[in-house]
Amino acid sequence: MSPTLPRDMLGRSALLSVDEAQNILKRRLPGIRIGSETVSLHRSLGRITAQPVVAPEDLPPHPRSTMDGFAVRAADTFGATETMPAYLTVTGEVRMGEFPATGPESGCCYRIATGGLLPPGTDSVIMLEHTVRLDDTMIEVNRSIGGGTNVIGRGDDIARGAEALPAHRRISPRDLGLLAGLGIDEIRVFRRVRVGILATGDEIVAPGESPPPGKIRNINTIALEGLIREMGQSATDYGIVADNREVFDRRLQKALAENDLVIFSGSSSVGSRDLGEQVLSELDDPGILVHGVAVKPGKPVIIAAHGNKLLFGLPGHPVSALVCFDLFIRKSIETLAGLDDPRPRGRRVRGTLMRPLNSAAGRRDYVRVRLEESTDGVKVYPILAKSGAISSLSRAHGYLIIGESSQGIEQYARVTVELFD
Amino acid sequence: MSPTLPRDMLGRSALLSVDEAQNILKRRLPGIRIGSETVSLHRSLGRITAQPVVAPEDLPPHPRSTMDGFAVRAADTFGATETMPAYLTVTGEVRMGEFPATGPESGCCYRIATGGLLPPGTDSVIMLEHTVRLDDTMIEVNRSIGGGTNVIGRGDDIARGAEALPAHRRISPRDLGLLAGLGIDEIRVFRRVRVGILATGDEIVAPGESPPPGKIRNINTIALEGLIREMGQSATDYGIVADNREVFDRRLQKALAENDLVIFSGSSSVGSRDLGEQVLSELDDPGILVHGVAVKPGKPVIIAAHGNKLLFGLPGHPVSALVCFDLFIRKSIETLAGLDDPRPRGRRVRGTLMRPLNSAAGRRDYVRVRLEESTDGVKVYPILAKSGAISSLSRAHGYLIIGESSQGIEQYARVTVELFD
Repeated sequence: MSPTLPRDMLGRSALLSVDEAQNILKRRLPGIRIGSETVSLHRSLGRITAQPVVAPEDLPPHPRSTMDGFAVRAADTFGATETMPAYLTVTGEVRMGEFPATGPESGCCYRIATGGLLPPGTDSVIMLEHTVRLDDTMIEVNRSIGGGTNVIGRGDDIARGAEALPAHRRISPRDLGLLAGLGIDEIRVFRRVRVGILATGDEIVAPGESPPPGKIRNINTIALEGLIREMGQSATDYGIVADNREVFDRRLQKALAENDLVIFSGSSSVGSRDLGEQVLSELDDPGILVHGVAVKPGKPVIIAAHGNKLLFGLPGHPVSALVCFDLFIRKSIETLAGLDDPRPRGRRVRGTLMRPLNSAAGRRDYVRVRLEESTDGVKVYPILAKSGAISSLSRAHGYLIIGESSQGIEQYARVTVELFD
Repeated sequence: MSPTLPRDMLGRSALLSVDEAQNILKRRLPGIRIGSETVSLHRSLGRITAQPVVAPEDLPPHPRSTMDGFAVRAADTFGATETMPAYLTVTGEVRMGEFPATGPESGCCYRIATGGLLPPGTDSVIMLEHTVRLDDTMIEVNRSIGGGTNVIGRGDDIARGAEALPAHRRISPRDLGLLAGLGIDEIRVFRRVRVGILATGDEIVAPGESPPPGKIRNINTIALEGLIREMGQSATDYGIVADNREVFDRRLQKALAENDLVIFSGSSSVGSRDLGEQVLSELDDPGILVHGVAVKPGKPVIIAAHGNKLLFGLPGHPVSALVCFDLFIRKSIETLAGLDDPRPRGRRVRGTLMRPLNSAAGRRDYVRVRLEESTDGVKVYPILAKSGAISSLSRAHGYLIIGESSQGIEQYARVTVELFD
């Protein structure tokens, strides 16, 4: 038994507080390494990245238009106004999905749609709305634009070599989109944490059985399996073990050999309670870490480690067993699984808008935002990416919605963000 | 095209507001029926109940002790105090997992552990702590208890014929525990909603390809698939269709025949935009419901119905496509999937405690609570079930935590609840 356990005057180990027990467990976790594996993009949803995913190419690979209009040299529009327009000759068209081999001469332009590639020589796009068609080949441009206007440049969305996804991140549907856009079809992810589950107790029967008087069906195994699978990890049922030391020992050794973490739920019988304690107290390297916690329900929980494996002996009663899962096992599995994802969860969160936002009345705007937790509360940053940016899908935490009747939101206003996922 | 669409002076359909579009869609959903199927309990996690699940038996099937102590006739303790104790003879023991054939005589008692079955003739359990052992067969009882004390009666947890789970509920790990405890091994659930996904546009290539200049990889399909699978529904990829009317028609018909809902994401090319509109405008029964919504991004979305199928034409740009998914498709899929689950989601919620709660100092209590939304905010009701109650697992929405330093919480206090799942 570990020498760190506090003991009372009779030499019995005293109850630890929940925080103490969690801290003892937490200190043990870094010593346990879960390996990684490569999975195809199609099978990576919900898996956790084992290393940063780096963009293998510039996105977009070529400058593209973000508007319907005309690809021009910005210099050809300099000084143009509604009363003093510039005149340009339309000498070609960028066809969607085609790379224009040649571009317009100076003083000329090409018709271009949103997403079209900028033809050689041009550096910006004048919106259709800011031009007047004079005839089949001539347009009037009634405003001056700067270079790069309405263009998303090569690598503007994400540059080759930049981090597309950090390590320790649960891959979301939006992340899949970003990775697909980058042409990444395999990802290094942590392998799933393997959890073995045993139920002990003479009075426990399988759920499919009709229990004779005095027996009850095994509730804990299927509920624990469900909790672990919902976390995206792997659960294996090692069945029900009667209060028999030899059988329990053998089954526990098998579960330990095949898993990273083993959970057994005791019964309320003194026999099986003793059995679990006895078997765990004989484990070494280092053996029992926590034995009894000042919590209701869940007090008799036992936590032990054996080499790079963790064991949890839970009370037999389902309500107590699931409280112990939430208190001690869930966070351990998350840590072992490699998850360290600061993305907020839930449906919505309140925060402070850090930049003013404009919007057109009569239209509802969905502005993607990133959140940052600070001591002053949640800070909300609009992602002001050009509309072509795919990386914003993955970087955003949620939407800030600007209603139809609003023309914008002031800086430092309190806002509600609808979270993704 | 549906006659309900508002049109502007030129006969073009005007943009609908988000609310108008959502309402038009919502009115269409009840006409679409998704059938149900039977699955084994082990495969039912995350599925949605198609009918209420009724308890086939009483739980517990026999009265059980909720404490370690002695099974007694309450009448034998009447009037007992510390100064005037009652004396009882211990004439037997309830062994865990066994049904006691005979019980103690009047003036006698049986030793019993938590979970043990009450022996015939007894009606309550006196806690070990409220007795003093005098010798091997005699105990002193130093308090008077009422009938039923420390006992969970037959059917107290859930009675035969009572509703164990409502219809339209997503089955949680805790629900699995309750159903296993009731011996239910098959459940009637809604079948998964089938969604077919097409990508259109001459410039779209598969994610595995290296796109030549001007082409971009298909981002929408894998992201939409991920969103649908995260909802527990079924997504099928119908590939990429070039801007070719005949091919598009054929692929769309196949997807319509095989799915409840078909999503195609257009490209930003005028060609494919026109193609989607054209194909949908020729659908009848009733055809296009929504064509263009006053939202940014996502404005060019098209929503159509054809018999009992729904079609969604999304903008090609991934950011716009995913906003349209969140605005229109997610809720449609939830409704078709049969989900009508009022359980709050997220990590935690604030509310008003509706009953006072006591707690022991030095111990952390995890009290299961149910939440009720009201116009005054969230009301928090502790589930005051006896500690043996398994049904509370499934009925609770989360935990209210009472810290070590607290001896309880007053009625109407503002509290924070940690939500399950």
